[in-house]
Amino acid sequence: MAIPVETFFLSAPSQGTLQARIQQMVAEGILSGRFRRGEKLPSTRGLATHLGVSRITVTLAYTELLANDYLSSRGRSGYYVSDNAPEPPRFAQPPQRKDSVDWSRAIATRFTGGATPVKPQDWARYRYPFIYGQTDPALFDHANWRLCAMQALGAKDFSALTRDYYDQDDPDLVAFIARHTLPRRGISAAPSEILITLGAQNALWLTTQVLLNQRRLAAVENPCYHALRDILGQSRCRLAPIDVDQDGLPPDALPDDTDVIFTTPSHQCPTSGTMPLARRNALLDRARALDALIVEDDYEFEMSYLQPPMPALKSLDQDGRVIYVGSFSKSLFPGLRLGYLVGSADFIAEARALRASVLRHPPGHIQRTAAHFLRLGHYDALIRRSARALTERRQVMETAIAQHGLTIAGRGAYGGSSFWMQAPPHVDTTELAGRLDAQEVLIEPGAPFFSGTEVPRNFYRLAYSSIPLNRIADGIALIAAALR
Amino acid sequence: MAIPVETFFLSAPSQGTLQARIQQMVAEGILSGRFRRGEKLPSTRGLATHLGVSRITVTLAYTELLANDYLSSRGRSGYYVSDNAPEPPRFAQPPQRKDSVDWSRAIATRFTGGATPVKPQDWARYRYPFIYGQTDPALFDHANWRLCAMQALGAKDFSALTRDYYDQDDPDLVAFIARHTLPRRGISAAPSEILITLGAQNALWLTTQVLLNQRRLAAVENPCYHALRDILGQSRCRLAPIDVDQDGLPPDALPDDTDVIFTTPSHQCPTSGTMPLARRNALLDRARALDALIVEDDYEFEMSYLQPPMPALKSLDQDGRVIYVGSFSKSLFPGLRLGYLVGSADFIAEARALRASVLRHPPGHIQRTAAHFLRLGHYDALIRRSARALTERRQVMETAIAQHGLTIAGRGAYGGSSFWMQAPPHVDTTELAGRLDAQEVLIEPGAPFFSGTEVPRNFYRLAYSSIPLNRIADGIALIAAALR
Repeated sequence: MAIPVETFFLSAPSQGTLQARIQQMVAEGILSGRFRRGEKLPSTRGLATHLGVSRITVTLAYTELLANDYLSSRGRSGYYVSDNAPEPPRFAQPPQRKDSVDWSRAIATRFTGGATPVKPQDWARYRYPFIYGQTDPALFDHANWRLCAMQALGAKDFSALTRDYYDQDDPDLVAFIARHTLPRRGISAAPSEILITLGAQNALWLTTQVLLNQRRLAAVENPCYHALRDILGQSRCRLAPIDVDQDGLPPDALPDDTDVIFTTPSHQCPTSGTMPLARRNALLDRARALDALIVEDDYEFEMSYLQPPMPALKSLDQDGRVIYVGSFSKSLFPGLRLGYLVGSADFIAEARALRASVLRHPPGHIQRTAAHFLRLGHYDALIRRSARALTERRQVMETAIAQHGLTIAGRGAYGGSSFWMQAPPHVDTTELAGRLDAQEVLIEPGAPFFSGTEVPRNFYRLAYSSIPLNRIADGIALIAAALR
Repeated sequence: MAIPVETFFLSAPSQGTLQARIQQMVAEGILSGRFRRGEKLPSTRGLATHLGVSRITVTLAYTELLANDYLSSRGRSGYYVSDNAPEPPRFAQPPQRKDSVDWSRAIATRFTGGATPVKPQDWARYRYPFIYGQTDPALFDHANWRLCAMQALGAKDFSALTRDYYDQDDPDLVAFIARHTLPRRGISAAPSEILITLGAQNALWLTTQVLLNQRRLAAVENPCYHALRDILGQSRCRLAPIDVDQDGLPPDALPDDTDVIFTTPSHQCPTSGTMPLARRNALLDRARALDALIVEDDYEFEMSYLQPPMPALKSLDQDGRVIYVGSFSKSLFPGLRLGYLVGSADFIAEARALRASVLRHPPGHIQRTAAHFLRLGHYDALIRRSARALTERRQVMETAIAQHGLTIAGRGAYGGSSFWMQAPPHVDTTELAGRLDAQEVLIEPGAPFFSGTEVPRNFYRLAYSSIPLNRIADGIALIAAALR
């Protein structure tokens, strides 16, 4: 039996080269059982004409399928589904059914319903995306990342990328972080004091699980990163939200029974304040007096383009009291999911064992690609390129914000990628964001960052890491108009 | 000041092309502060001669560094560290210090000391690696994986790989699993019933956290996958180990207050038994009577090269009672860390929310690369290639085992990649493994798979997924000799 050429079609929004799409159509037909062993494929000429592609494209696709034993060729008579082609499943699909399980009883612990708001997946389609924490494809060094990924996929690195590391990490990446990344933050750490994580979020989660339980008290900044509150909620610890001021977390406000202090000294999240040196020392003194630990989330330190960043709080730590969280997700791209934890070996050993249980290790290929990208200096070049773009955008943002009389409530002293904004007291920025959405303006309401039930509703965050320079002024104008 | 050519050296066991290594040396020198702004680099000719490489290689490296602003060129006078080159950190390294933190008090929950044994990182150097669950680089379709990774790094896929998915997955991968992978196991599932995980380990961990707590009872097979016991230990649930027989888990032995049943029907781990259809139905009936859930770890189903695999237990489930765990780690490579959970939407929603807290989502690039590899049929071709190799190896294993009078305690009816072996009763296989290690033979002692304190010590696992065909006979001979 011959497979009719009409069963092939190049659907419009498909991916890959024409050749790959033809291969895929044939493979899918075989795997789904639509094409059976021994059936004859359309001729290369016939299929090429039907699809409106060149004959060589079809020939190349068939040749590839031949090599993988999906097809066989019978001299001049053409191509057939190979006798060794994979068999489709022989059992029928079960009909749709309704669960008889009572999930409200079966689920022991619920994790849905946290503080972290749902963010739009389709932010890139907004004309004015003042969204935080996403990538600007125009800034990323796509070509060199690709080269590094290729190198990591090369024969030499192959075992590094494919093997099961059990609870270990890529030694190249750990070595680079120890020798180059951490020294730039004033931190010296041995490999046993470093753990690679699936982004900063995973680092914070691991830390919380190791250090907290129902009896312990965690102090968090208020406002703070909403996902951190979700994470702490899951550890069931007691929570003390501490209101921040312009200089970040005030050490004197920490309760006497605090066990762990979560802080963002470089850029307070979300207000962007930078903690001055005097307060850093005061915070360390207070933690020592309380015998509390400090978890320092040093996010965005690499976005210090206005002046060189202050060393990390961890660099001042003589007690082993500070656990440091770093990330490449912001500066490379968030889909990378690569961060690291730095702390005393005793702590890292527990975090490592927990990570091994939860996920073993971050994928080898990702670790090795990042190691190459860092080692070849592309990362630093990228940071400098981003810094130039962010400097320009920040200037345009500030000008437009001033022009329209909007109020900046917090901004990074060293740089950063966002402003913390304050609307007039009567404004609910969640409602404002909804109205702006219709005008293709994406802003982030501030309420989810705050702890407690009575939270201020008139703050919002405006980031400039993804919005093109020439759209900023119009976007700010639309926000100002909506506020009037 | 000129940078002396002698500070450059191509250290022996280094990676990457010569050009990349030269770039790296220069970049590292600058980043570490050894090379300062304005300093003159060696001439291309001088450095080429010193390193024993061609001059064009050095020129290409310098040109790349020029483009990234590490170097500047002053006409004919040569290359200099650019005035825009990154600055090394200005603050000094803190001296080594001793922690004043009491970690025995500060750590709230310990995760070290689990049942999972430490496995050798350097297994590839063993002459006879009967190791389980690692890759054989000779079988993997390296070239096509590389092509798929490149495609996933292409401009079209770029946003898919770089963006933050929050709690979502790559829709392409989920669609492929729903349309092609699961139907082959007799399972039909909507995208809302599928969650991508960091390998099967992560899927089991998420499931445990959602379904169990201190009051609930989990039934596990005895012996079972040791990491599963660690995972269950962390959930603090009550545990009922059920001794398996040749057909796997006996449903009648399940305690009446069982809440969740963990089972491996396709290949019992580690004994390799396959659960017959009658027992599968009996297990479902028993679970229904108990109103218990079943977690089906369907590992190695794709290694069914002796006969087509039986449909998954999940395919017989009319109640929504079975949660299915699949993985690409075994069939692609373990360093990939890619698996999936299939279950009712209510359950998947909780697992998704927990995953979002713990790590957000598996890296986008990994997901997209796997999606391409699957879609183009390379995965199926790989499975068939592996099947041929495993068939041969299994035969040689069986012959050698019979020849030396060793005892197979369990083997997969459909295939698989290991034998469960039984040594004479007086033999301690942990001690045996130690002695064989000195002869470059790697076997896996069986004791860690068993629950309880009084465990049989004379079992061991012999896998043939990584050992070359022509080493099997000698390796088995050495094991037999050590047993005498």
